[in-house]
Amino acid sequence: MSDTEDLYGNAPDKSKVALVLIDVIGDSEFEDAEKLFENALPVVPKIAELKRRAKKAKVPVIYVNDNYGKWQSDFKKLLAHSLDKNVRGSRIAEQLTPEDDDYFVLKPKHSGFYSTTLEILLEHLACKTLILTGFATDICVLFTANDAYLRDYKLVIPRDCVAANDSETSNLTIKYVERVLKADTRSSEEIDISEIVKVA
Amino acid sequence: MSDTEDLYGNAPDKSKVALVLIDVIGDSEFEDAEKLFENALPVVPKIAELKRRAKKAKVPVIYVNDNYGKWQSDFKKLLAHSLDKNVRGSRIAEQLTPEDDDYFVLKPKHSGFYSTTLEILLEHLACKTLILTGFATDICVLFTANDAYLRDYKLVIPRDCVAANDSETSNLTIKYVERVLKADTRSSEEIDISEIVKVA
Amino acid sequence: MSDTEDLYGNAPDKSKVALVLIDVIGDSEFEDAEKLFENALPVVPKIAELKRRAKKAKVPVIYVNDNYGKWQSDFKKLLAHSLDKNVRGSRIAEQLTPEDDDYFVLKPKHSGFYSTTLEILLEHLACKTLILTGFATDICVLFTANDAYLRDYKLVIPRDCVAANDSETSNLTIKYVERVLKADTRSSEEIDISEIVKVA
Amino acid sequence: MSDTEDLYGNAPDKSKVALVLIDVIGDSEFEDAEKLFENALPVVPKIAELKRRAKKAKVPVIYVNDNYGKWQSDFKKLLAHSLDKNVRGSRIAEQLTPEDDDYFVLKPKHSGFYSTTLEILLEHLACKTLILTGFATDICVLFTANDAYLRDYKLVIPRDCVAANDSETSNLTIKYVERVLKADTRSSEEIDISEIVKVA
Repeated sequence: MSDTEDLYGNAPDKSKVALVLIDVIGDSEFEDAEKLFENALPVVPKIAELKRRAKKAKVPVIYVNDNYGKWQSDFKKLLAHSLDKNVRGSRIAEQLTPEDDDYFVLKPKHSGFYSTTLEILLEHLACKTLILTGFATDICVLFTANDAYLRDYKLVIPRDCVAANDSETSNLTIKYVERVLKADTRSSEEIDISEIVKVA
Repeated sequence: MSDTEDLYGNAPDKSKVALVLIDVIGDSEFEDAEKLFENALPVVPKIAELKRRAKKAKVPVIYVNDNYGKWQSDFKKLLAHSLDKNVRGSRIAEQLTPEDDDYFVLKPKHSGFYSTTLEILLEHLACKTLILTGFATDICVLFTANDAYLRDYKLVIPRDCVAANDSETSNLTIKYVERVLKADTRSSEEIDISEIVKVA
Repeated sequence: MSDTEDLYGNAPDKSKVALVLIDVIGDSEFEDAEKLFENALPVVPKIAELKRRAKKAKVPVIYVNDNYGKWQSDFKKLLAHSLDKNVRGSRIAEQLTPEDDDYFVLKPKHSGFYSTTLEILLEHLACKTLILTGFATDICVLFTANDAYLRDYKLVIPRDCVAANDSETSNLTIKYVERVLKADTRSSEEIDISEIVKVA
Repeated sequence: MSDTEDLYGNAPDKSKVALVLIDVIGDSEFEDAEKLFENALPVVPKIAELKRRAKKAKVPVIYVNDNYGKWQSDFKKLLAHSLDKNVRGSRIAEQLTPEDDDYFVLKPKHSGFYSTTLEILLEHLACKTLILTGFATDICVLFTANDAYLRDYKLVIPRDCVAANDSETSNLTIKYVERVLKADTRSSEEIDISEIVKVA
């Protein structure tokens, strides 16, 4: 209600690196979701392990997630729905359930930067490097990666922490982000998070 | 996880007019909040009555609210905190508790349009006219009004549905939005919502 | 200096369709420009012919062009430099010299929408469909196409009016924009501009 | 046409401070421009002197100027028109003619940040503090100042380097930017540019 320093002063802790999880929460019940779900499921333990290591290294975790056109909803409601055992997506959401100190940004469209608070959150965190993971490689991951590149973020997109409707599409996108966005796409087990923080 | 039409197809119902409640939810416990709270409290029943009439006219209600720098929080958590009887703001929040079909947008800064989903929500609703209410007149209401004017929205800012730290400041701002933003600032009881919808 | 209606009232003529020429003006003298230039040159007469037909159909033509990091420059200066017979790019620029009633937007980065006036120009024109042409298919054309898709523009990207460093890259991008962005990629000679205007 | 480092590598020289001239170039021939012109004219030598000192201190000068709805025009054409002895605005433009190393940003609306390249230019310059001057205090200067404040710029708005249709309006705006935006509004002769650079 005011613009005192108190109000806007409790910014998040600074971190030059953030781990971003794109569209990992959802029911996966929409039409055509099955193929993506099948490719996504084996990737989830890799993301979960990378998240565990990120949090150990005090690298903040940001869920950037579709709002599925439900403007009156919020992330907690979406999460509760996605954890329901009756929906396909629960097998992903239960492995990647956000913790209290994780950040989340609802995106109305494919890019995590379009009409969202992501840009200003990253500025507050003073981030320089983003580790992008999630689904689908060629759509929401790519749109978000492109927008991050425009904004001069260094990108790490571990090739084993993304998935698309088919693996060829995912592989082609990985080649694209390497070539055009200069992204580091090494596998998650080859990533040394403390090293990324040091050079960021 | 995909860009099928299904995914982004369940847009909100169209409405040429929206009622916006700015920073009405909060604990009002920060330093210097007392003066604003005193001026805001008598305004709250006017906003509540306008909201009742808006919903009757099927005009959507959008809460545009500060996130108070708490990036890990969400609107529901902020609401629960603000409804706690031990905080000053509960006397406002209990009169303006959002309903299930209300929209909400968390803003990190003073303008409801800055780094938020408000613009794209309004596009989906196909809004042309915004009725702005809330606090404080000269800060978050004015910043939001200016940004709405830049985007060619027609503005209705009922003079009895806003408040600031002192009434002179609020009055000067009302004169400004009339003169520069061409806002209609008539009192809420003089507003005929169905008429605003008709000419929007 | 004021906000009178006169000031902002001389908006451009309305058109539901616009033809966009991306990065066609430049000296093509930077390192590695040679391969792109070789692929771009045979495409230029196709763009020139499409432009001729667009203007005949009263479809506005918008040059969306890199500023090449020269913030103190303007489009006219860039054009004059690019028309200099001593630079490689003159062979393109002389075929696509902007006319007095063409629009131009200088972009500082890859996407025509990022930190430019393009979005508000298109709103003033009331455009719904964009015909994208120019270079390079996989970089500035793709970034611009993605951003246009986020903003709900229908896209026509004639496959013979774009080029990249190699034709396989261009072809892969064409497949991507067909599949993900639902772009119409038919060849320019198959395009009926008045038909596009009719269905826009 | 490419995204090589060469292309985007020739960013402007860094400077923590920039001097911004808002809407000083124009013909001042639109309806109601007379009152603003009368108040603006005596301010112009102050801005010219401040510009002279800024350039001596190697502080970059940015013209942020209305495009007057002429989307096909550019700044040079606008300048040439404004320097025509037959238009009222020439008496201002001849005192504030941009030099070759000055920057300019055409804005389609009131705020210098809305749908323009200003934000990314300031990022490239690595600016932290903006010295705002020009016209009109309560409209384009205020809209630009508010948007700069949202983006965390420190503001200096010398009270003798701005003008509005009447002096009371200008004075009220000066009080507003002091109180809400924490702007330093001391007169231009009291400003020590090297001191501003040092603390930026």
